This record gives sequence, structure tokens and C-alpha cells, in this order.
Amino acid sequence: MGIVDIAPWIVLAASICGLAFAMYKFFWVKKQPEGTKEMANISAKIRKGAMAYLKRQYKTVGIFFIVMLIIICVMAAFGLLTWFVPFAFVSGGFFSGLSGFIGMKIATYANSRTANGAQNSLNKGLKVAFSSGTVMGLTVVGLGLLDISVWFIILKAVLSDPNEIMAAMLTFGMGASSMALFARVGGGIFTKAADVGADLVGKVEAGIPEDDPRNPAVIADNVGDNVGDVAGMGADLYESYVGSIISTGALATAAGLGFKGIVVPMMIAAIGIIASIIGTFFVSTKEGATQKNLLGSLRRGTYVSAILSAISAAVLIFTLLPQNTGVFWAVISGLVAGVLIGFFTEYYTSDSYKPTQKLSESSKTGSATIIIDGIALGMNSTAIPVVIVGISILVSFFAAGGGGFLATGDLSSFSLGLYGVGISAVGMLATLGITLATDAYGPVADNAGGIAEMAGLDEEVRNRTDALDSLGNTTAATGKGFAIGSAALTALALIVSYTDKIQALGGQLQLSLTNPPVLIGLFVGAMLPFLFSAFTMQAVGRAAQKIVVEVRRQFKQIKGLMEGKAEADYETCVDICTRSSLREMILPAALGILAPIVVGLVLGVNGVVGMLAGALVSGFAIAIMMANSGGAWDNAKKYIEAGNFGGKGSDNHKAAVVGDTVGDPFKDTSGPSVNILIKLLSMVSIVFAALIVKFNLVDLITGLLK
Amino acid sequence: MGIVDIAPWIVLAASICGLAFAMYKFFWVKKQPEGTKEMANISAKIRKGAMAYLKRQYKTVGIFFIVMLIIICVMAAFGLLTWFVPFAFVSGGFFSGLSGFIGMKIATYANSRTANGAQNSLNKGLKVAFSSGTVMGLTVVGLGLLDISVWFIILKAVLSDPNEIMAAMLTFGMGASSMALFARVGGGIFTKAADVGADLVGKVEAGIPEDDPRNPAVIADNVGDNVGDVAGMGADLYESYVGSIISTGALATAAGLGFKGIVVPMMIAAIGIIASIIGTFFVSTKEGATQKNLLGSLRRGTYVSAILSAISAAVLIFTLLPQNTGVFWAVISGLVAGVLIGFFTEYYTSDSYKPTQKLSESSKTGSATIIIDGIALGMNSTAIPVVIVGISILVSFFAAGGGGFLATGDLSSFSLGLYGVGISAVGMLATLGITLATDAYGPVADNAGGIAEMAGLDEEVRNRTDALDSLGNTTAATGKGFAIGSAALTALALIVSYTDKIQALGGQLQLSLTNPPVLIGLFVGAMLPFLFSAFTMQAVGRAAQKIVVEVRRQFKQIKGLMEGKAEADYETCVDICTRSSLREMILPAALGILAPIVVGLVLGVNGVVGMLAGALVSGFAIAIMMANSGGAWDNAKKYIEAGNFGGKGSDNHKAAVVGDTVGDPFKDTSGPSVNILIKLLSMVSIVFAALIVKFNLVDLITGLLK
Repeated sequence: MGIVDIAPWIVLAASICGLAFAMYKFFWVKKQPEGTKEMANISAKIRKGAMAYLKRQYKTVGIFFIVMLIIICVMAAFGLLTWFVPFAFVSGGFFSGLSGFIGMKIATYANSRTANGAQNSLNKGLKVAFSSGTVMGLTVVGLGLLDISVWFIILKAVLSDPNEIMAAMLTFGMGASSMALFARVGGGIFTKAADVGADLVGKVEAGIPEDDPRNPAVIADNVGDNVGDVAGMGADLYESYVGSIISTGALATAAGLGFKGIVVPMMIAAIGIIASIIGTFFVSTKEGATQKNLLGSLRRGTYVSAILSAISAAVLIFTLLPQNTGVFWAVISGLVAGVLIGFFTEYYTSDSYKPTQKLSESSKTGSATIIIDGIALGMNSTAIPVVIVGISILVSFFAAGGGGFLATGDLSSFSLGLYGVGISAVGMLATLGITLATDAYGPVADNAGGIAEMAGLDEEVRNRTDALDSLGNTTAATGKGFAIGSAALTALALIVSYTDKIQALGGQLQLSLTNPPVLIGLFVGAMLPFLFSAFTMQAVGRAAQKIVVEVRRQFKQIKGLMEGKAEADYETCVDICTRSSLREMILPAALGILAPIVVGLVLGVNGVVGMLAGALVSGFAIAIMMANSGGAWDNAKKYIEAGNFGGKGSDNHKAAVVGDTVGDPFKDTSGPSVNILIKLLSMVSIVFAALIVKFNLVDLITGLLK
Repeated sequence: MGIVDIAPWIVLAASICGLAFAMYKFFWVKKQPEGTKEMANISAKIRKGAMAYLKRQYKTVGIFFIVMLIIICVMAAFGLLTWFVPFAFVSGGFFSGLSGFIGMKIATYANSRTANGAQNSLNKGLKVAFSSGTVMGLTVVGLGLLDISVWFIILKAVLSDPNEIMAAMLTFGMGASSMALFARVGGGIFTKAADVGADLVGKVEAGIPEDDPRNPAVIADNVGDNVGDVAGMGADLYESYVGSIISTGALATAAGLGFKGIVVPMMIAAIGIIASIIGTFFVSTKEGATQKNLLGSLRRGTYVSAILSAISAAVLIFTLLPQNTGVFWAVISGLVAGVLIGFFTEYYTSDSYKPTQKLSESSKTGSATIIIDGIALGMNSTAIPVVIVGISILVSFFAAGGGGFLATGDLSSFSLGLYGVGISAVGMLATLGITLATDAYGPVADNAGGIAEMAGLDEEVRNRTDALDSLGNTTAATGKGFAIGSAALTALALIVSYTDKIQALGGQLQLSLTNPPVLIGLFVGAMLPFLFSAFTMQAVGRAAQKIVVEVRRQFKQIKGLMEGKAEADYETCVDICTRSSLREMILPAALGILAPIVVGLVLGVNGVVGMLAGALVSGFAIAIMMANSGGAWDNAKKYIEAGNFGGKGSDNHKAAVVGDTVGDPFKDTSGPSVNILIKLLSMVSIVFAALIVKFNLVDLITGLLK
């Protein structure tokens, strides 16, 4: 039995390790005291609302999955796909959803426990929140590798051709992407509708503070943090993680690396899981730690994991691919690019740096100027990540051996280079277990703050949860860097997988930029993220409008609510958010799934590749712009609240609140969903490739001209 | 002497006809009475400020032209370019600037005369303003064809190879583009800095109405309309017009159409000039006409010209290209696409339609929601133009004979198809003489309104100029459609010209989308319009800030200003706007000129093509988004001012004013400049092609690998 036969089992073992560790942490968190009865009560309400949402979301998404399943089965019956595809598709969707579900379950247990921990000390609060994040992080990577390794073991036993195996595996990527898009978009609409609605009436009209229990939308707001920032992000990163590993594996055969090339990305990921587990032990500080100590401790964990991963990856690659040791540098370039993009995200959005400080200064001349400057800041911030990704592509391409193609036109070295690009995405996401943990603890801290406020805990407690929350903003910036960077590289690998598939299907590729179908596809693709963002932003607007109406109604009709004598009807608000976000997520998701099919039917396979590339490059810029504009507005507001430029309640602050409100759907709904969109488009294209190769309008017309 | 030898002289004659007609209209306008002494006085102030700005702008731009000239001469000395290039470059810049200069000269004469005409009737006002627009329209096309025909006659006499002739002619495109970019960006910053600055202090802080003579920035604001909307637009459209004709001519030889193929686009343009002149005679109504009559009369003029052009183009093409009569359909597809994009621009931005009405309704929940919805509206509105341009590319490609390429891979039919795409851009711009006239009269009406207000004319006069102004907004929408649509098609033709040039230079093209330099170029290109927009928006912000400070100072220090007893110091405001806009235009312009050179030096020619395509597709979407968001906000505000949703002075109105202010740099600075950017990038690439083919990093590295 060679290394190639043992490797999948090692990967399976690593995934089980990850899941076991997640389970251990899960029960540790649940064992922590929940605080007062009131705190437990509020937490239960949030949990109930969140679970109710998820259940209904799964039902809605279930209908979509059944429809897609029927379509896929019909295609399989016509011989356009193998019969593994339907099952793979469902398993990808199921595990992606499950990642979100488990992450959210623990987050809704951890919120009151974090608030309670923060009653003792900052460190205690961090420990609970970070453990909850760890559950999420390791669940995502554990389930991801479980799905990959089990499928690989089964498929390898049944099919012998590595190409066929990887083609089937790519379809569970489509399941995962679809699920992720629904979760991100639905959750994103929910959370921002509740947030904007609660703020517009509660803060602005009624003048009560944030998280005030008198606000009928306050529970919906806290539920939103969980279904959007936790469940949505879990499904999203599950998809990125799985997508990068399988798309790279799919490139291995064209690169002539065979099964060894397929198992390398899996093994790098497996190493990453173990390194992440080890890294979590480095996250802890002495009692009485300051916020800076805490950040240092989180960073220590991440860096330890990254270094461990890099060293082990070197050993792995030198053993498995002794002819292609340059691939190691692709791993490093991915890791470094992820860290750098994260740093620059922080630079543009944190109020410790010039750009956001200047942005908050522009509030002096009113809301119009802070909006203009915020959009300009976001647009400005696209330049550096593009350069970083560009360098990372070039380095990994050359390092893996792609230079031969540019020198002599040799196609096998071309595939090798592209394999390197895929590997750099895997490298970027290798330590996702821990980077996601440091990212996912933020919403827990945010919720804990809400509970502290609603339960009327000491101001000191709220200050501590605020410190945790603000720390979370910093780590979230790094997390976003990884998410966006890896999305770009993964989408790239997927596009190449698509072209490989088309060639395997006997389709005619003519991918020159001057070929009209390619060009038109490029135009359409570049437009899609704009249209998609428009859909999602308008959805937030409509849903928020409904919350505004309902909150106003409750303030008017429930006697004694403002005096704190009567309780608000929280459930109706949760219900409205649930129903409208589920209805509103259909259109954007349909765009992501139908666009590749329609473009394919009209323009053929070359048009599809153009569309994928167009969506990738414009989507990358839009996603960064929206995330960074939104983040900077949020922190510019916080900077003013911290006492700069007039402080809370000043006209400048009011202008900054407008900026923050505009930024909400930017950074938490549209921006992160675009990341998923660019990968989903590729996945759908791959699944429907056989259909498009056989039938499309451009080929039909040119056929008549022959 | 064959048709090919006669044609350039016919084109020259048509251009002279156009210029003669423009001159006749120029003197007609100057002969009209200027109104009261005060009106003449104000008009003189505006003219003086505008001329002072232009003179200093030409000085600044002159330095740039000298630097570029030296670089180009050095390249010519090394044999990288022919010695015609420096002269062609300068002539393009000179005529582009001259178009703006003449258009602005007449606009600053026409403003008081329009106000005076409006004292009699709406129709009289229209007649003066439209005549001023006609001067601008026919000057742009007349000078454009003059430059083209004279150069063509000279070059054809000296050089015999059509490829060499067209290569030299493409460089005056670069001169025109550079000048246009400076004019658009500089003028755009001037006009919006003055506008935003005047509004922020005058309207919001001091509570005085728009165009109130007590506002120290009021003259600067009116100067801005001329230097931005008139001079900037003139230079811009000169560049589009010339660019589309020469880039299509450059594609003719590869398509095997020889000199006949080169003269066809010139001849279509010549026909368009005559048709435009005829069209202007259909623009007139009876006394006592309503606004609707006026719009009908403007439309009649445009449609008559379009139909005349189409019929003559058919005769022309059936005579000159009897083997390729399908090219005629390319002309039609361009004309139709331009009209359709214009219509949808109007649909999304006019308050007669749902989108803008709904947008003004979202002001009910405050400025944040109207901003979110306005951005979403702009993003949404990108979809239809992309589809229209896509169909237009496909139709013109197939109609001109490109289908053979897709069917059999035949390269000569590929070039034929691309020639068709170029022709559709020429078709779209053929009637520019009259479409620009209907577009350029808007700022004149706007200025006339300002003069009516400042000179304290009857309210009825202001109402009439407002009616003219609002009519101008509608026709401007159509104009923008032509500008954006033709920019996309022209840029496309330029990209193909670039690839032809690279092949002629012996460069290695590998333009597949999966080739890493192409892909990285695509990423960089898609990012450039974002970065460019950020630069221009931030420039407006900084310049407006200075005006705010100055206006505040004058209100404080000039005794009796608010009571109308003392005169404001208008000149200082004009001077500040001039200085800051000239300084601020450097960085964005430098980006447009340096990006292709830097990308070329690093990634080589394939990277450059990727960059050009990326900038084209993302720039197209951004330009539409910014133009339409801005237009819709402007009209949403006007819709509220017309008495809907609370009317003037209500909270809703205040929210809408914030939207309008955000939209100002969107629609008048960044959006239209992006149109020029995407063409300038191609022009610069073409001029520096020989350098990049000889030296770049990627080729250097791969050379070492050989």
C-alpha cells in the first residue's frame, strides 16, 4: 500500500481529530455557568429565534435542493453526468449547512456564558468566547475534510480514473456553494434588516440606547448576529475551504501529478487542522490582561499554527512531490498573501490608522461628505489586495513550474503552474481552523454585550464585552482578508477546472480575449456582482422597512412599553425578519445559479469562461470595496464615540451614524455574498458543462454558417 | 482617380461644411441681445472666470504634453516610433482642447442671451440655447473630421502602407484622449468643488437660495458648469468620435478591406455631419409651445438625422463594400444600441419613471436609506446596457462576416467581424453633431437660470429656464448613453488595434484567459476604474473643503454681505477652484498614463491586453452605475421639490439633498472620466507597444528559463 492509499485515511483521521476537539470544546462551553436567570432567559430567546430561523431556512433551501436534484438526476439519466453527482451535490449542501448549524448552536450557548465570564474578568470572557469560536472553526474544517476524505475513499474504490473522481467531487462543491450563498444572503438580510430597523426607530426616533430591552427588534437584532455572522459565515468558509482543496485536486491530473497531486492539498489541510488545534493552546493570558495582551495572545495562536503548517508542508511536499518541490513556495505565497491582505484590510478599516481617522474627520461637513469619502476609501483599498493577489499568482505559478509554458509554450508546465496557484489558495486556508476561531468569537462577544445591557449588568461588564467586541473587529478584518483572497484564488482554480472539463467533454475552447463570445461573457460577468449587490441591498432595504413599521406599531399600541412596564412582542419582529429574509434571498441566489446556464445557452463555453473571469475580477474589487467602506464607516463612528470630533450625540456623530447605516448592508450582506457568488458561478458552470457543450446558440448559428 | 482618392477630400469638405455652419450659428448667437446691463455684467464675469481657468489648464496640460513629446521623440529617435507620431500626438491634443474652448466660448456668450430670450418665450430661450449647443456639436465633429482627413491625405501621400498610416493616426488619438482626460477630470473637479462648496455653506449653513448673488461661490459655480459640463464634455466627445473612426480604420487592413475599409468609417461620419446640419432645421416650434412640444421637436431633429444617416450609409456601403454589405447592419446595430442605452438611462434617472420616484420615497426613512437605494439603483441599471452592448457586439460581428471565424477558425473573417464591431461604434456616433447639440444646450440653460436669479428677473423667466434645464436633463441622459456605449465599443476596437500592432511588431501574443499574465492584467484592469474613481472623488472632497473655508471666511469678514449691501469677492473662489482642480487632476491623469506602462513593463504585452479588457468591462459598469445613481438622486430631489413626499424644506427633502450631494461627484466627475480612462489606457498602450514588446519582466524571467 503506497502513500496515496494511506493518505486519505490520514486525512480522515485528522478530520475526526478536529471534530473530536470541537466536541470537547462544545461541552466545555456548555458546562460554564450561564449567569442570572434573566441572562439565561434572554439567551434562550435568542437561541429559540435563531433556531427557528435556521429550521425554516433549511426548509426553503430544501425545496431548492430537491428541484436541483431532479434536474441533476435527469441530466444523469441522459448520460450528461455520472450518478455520483446527485449524492455528492446533496452531501456538500448538507455539510455546509451543518457547519453553520453547529457553529450557531454553540454561539447561542456561549453568549450568556461569555457575559457571565466577563463579570469576573476580561480573560474569562475571552476564554468562553474563543472556545465557542474554536468549536466553529474546527467544525468547519473537520466536516470539510470528512466529506472530502470519505468521498475520495469511496470514489477511488469504485472509479479508477482520477479525472472522473475529481469531476464527481467538484459537484459537492456546488452543493456547498449553493447552501453557502443561501445562508450568507438570507442571514445577511436578516441581520441587517433587524439592525437597521432597530436603529432607525429605536435609536433615532425614540432615542433609546442600543440593545435596550424596550426595543421590540432587539432580540431580532441579536438573533441576526447569529444567523448572519455565525451561521452564514460558517457555511461560507466551509465552501471556500472545500472548494480550494477539490479544485486544486482537480488540477493535479492535467499537471501530470496523478493521485499524489490530488492528495497533497488534502494532506496540507490535514496538517493545518492539527496545527490549528495546537495553536489554540497558545491562546490564553494571565488574569488582569489588557486588550493589547489579548490581541497578542490571539495572534500568537495564529502564528504558531501558520509556522507549524509551513514546516510540515515542506516535509510533505519534499516527500510526496520530490520532482516539484517548488510547490512548497506556492503554499508559502498563499499564507503570506492571506496575512498581508488581512493586514491591509485592518489598515484601511481600523481607527488606529490614518484612513479611518480621516474618514471620521470628514463627518465635520456632514453626512454627504462622509459617504463620499467612505466610498472613495473602499475603492482606494482595492488596489493593494489586487497587487498582492497578482504577485501571489505569479510567484506560485512560476514556483510550481509554470515558467516553462511562458518560455516554450509547453502545456504540461502550464498545468503545473496553475496547480501551484490552486495550492496557494489551499495554503492560505490551511490554518482556517484557528483563523476562523479568532474570527467567529466576535459575534459571540457582540451578543454577550447585548445580554449584559438587557440584563442590566454592571457597566464594567459591558465595557469588557465591548473590549472583546472591538478586538473581534480587528481579528474579523484578518478573517475577511483570508476569505476574499482565498475566494479569488479558488475561483481561479475552478475556472481552470472548468476548462479542463470542457476539453475532456470534447468542447471547442477559443479563450482569446478578442474572441467576441469571450468578450461579451466578460462584460456580463463584470456586471453580475453589481446586479447581485443591488439585489441584496434592495432586499435589506425592503425587509428593514417592514421592521420599522412593526416597531413603530408596537411603540404606539403596547401601553407602558416605553416606561418599561410592559414587555415588547419580540417574536413578531423575529418572525418578520425570518419571513422576509427567506423570501428575499431567492432572487440573488437565482441570479447566481441561472446566470451561468443562460450565458452558456446563448454564448457557449467560451462565453461562460469569459463570464467567470469577468465576475471574478470585478467581484473581487467590489467585495473588497464594500467590506472596507463598511468597516471603515463602522469604526469611524466608534472613533467619534470614543470622544473624538465632538463625541457621541454631536452633529458629527449623527453624520457618522448615517455612514455606518449605509455600510451595514455593504459589509455584512452584499460584500461577503459576492465572495460566494464568484465561486458558485464556476461550480454551476462545471455541473452544467455537458449540457452547454452539446447545445448553445452561438454554436448553432455558426453551425449553420459552415 | 478612384473613390479611395476622392473620399478623403469629400470628408474634408464635410468637415468644413460642419465648421462653417458652426461659425454661422456662433455669430447668430452673438448677435442676439444680451439683456440688461447687469445680465451682461454677470455673463462677463462667468466668461472671464471660465477663460482664466481654461488658459491656466492649457498651461498645466502643456507641460505634460511637452514631457510626453520628449519621451515620444526619444522613442522615435531609437526607431520605436515613426517621426509622424509626435506631430500627430500634439495635433490630437490641440484639436481636442480647441473643441472644448470653442464650445465654452459660445456657451458663455449664450447664457445671458438665453435668459433674455426666455423673457419673451420658452421657444425663444430654447432657440438661443440650442444654437449654442449646435455650435459645440458641429465644432466637435467638424474639427474631428478635419484632423482625420488632413492627416490621412498627408500620410497617404508620404507612406503607402495602410498599416503604417493607421498606426501613425492612432497616436493622435492618444493626444486627444490625454487632453480629454485632463479636461474632464480638471473641469469635473472644478464644477463639483464649487457646487458642493457653495451648497454646503450657502444653502445649508446660511440658508440662502441657490444662485443667490450673496454667495461668494456663486460665480465659481456657474463657471464650473462651463468648464466641466461644456469644455470637459467637448474634449471628451471629440476623443470618442475621433477614436471610434481611427480605431475602426486601423482594423480595416487586417480585415483585408484595404483603403476602402479605412475610408468607410470616415465617410459614414461625413454623412453624419451633413445629416446633423439638416436635422437642426427640424428643431423649432410655434410660439407658445409647451415643454412636451419642445422635447418632441428636439427628438424630431435627432431622428431625422439618424434616418438620413442610415439611408446614406446603406448607399455608401453597397457602393464601396459590395462584398461586405453586412457591414451596414453593424451601423444600424450601433445606432439602435445608442438610442436604447439612452432610453434606459432616462428610464432609470428620470422622475417620470418608477425607479426615481421610488428612490425619492425612500427619503422618508432618512438619508441612509436614500443612499443605499440610490447606489443599488445605479448598480441595478448596469444590467440592461451590458446586454444591449453584448447583443450589439454579437450582431455587428456576425453581420460583418465574423461568423466564419467561429465556424471554421478562419482568421480573416475574424478581423472582418471585429471591423464590424468598430463600425457599430462609428454608427452610434455618426449623428454626434446633433445629439451633442441637444446635450450641450443643458448647461447653457442652467447658466441662464443662474443669471436670471442673480439679475433678479421675473419669476416667470426663471421658471422657463428651469423648464429648459429639466428638458436638458432628459436629453443629457440620451447623450450619456451614446457616450458610454460608444466608449465601450471604441475601447474594444482599440484593444484589437493594439493586438494587431503587437503582431506587426513581432510580439508573442498568448491571450487565453487562463494565461497568468492575462489574468493578473485582468485583475489590475478591473481595479483601475475603482482606484481612479477614488482619486477623483477624494479630489472633489478636498477642493470643496477649501471652498467651504473661503465662503465661511467671506460671510464672517465682509461686512454687509448678508444684507446685500456689499459685494462678495467672487474672484478668490474662482481662483481657489482653478488652482485646486489643476493640482488635483494630476494624480488621476497620471494613473491613466502610467498604468499601461508599468503593467507592460512587469507583465508584458499579454498582461497589457488583460488590463485593457479588465478596465473596459469593470469601467463600463462603474461609469453607468455612477452616472445613473447620480442622475437619479438629482431628479429624486427635484421630484420632492415639485411637491411630492413633503416638498421643499421637509425632512425628506433634506435627506434627498444628501443623496444629490453624494451624486454630484459620481455623475459629473468620476463617472464620465472613467469613460475616457478606458480609451486612454488603450491609446497609451498602443504608443508604447514597441517598448513593451522589447522589454518586460515576465519575458525576462521566462527568457532565463529557456
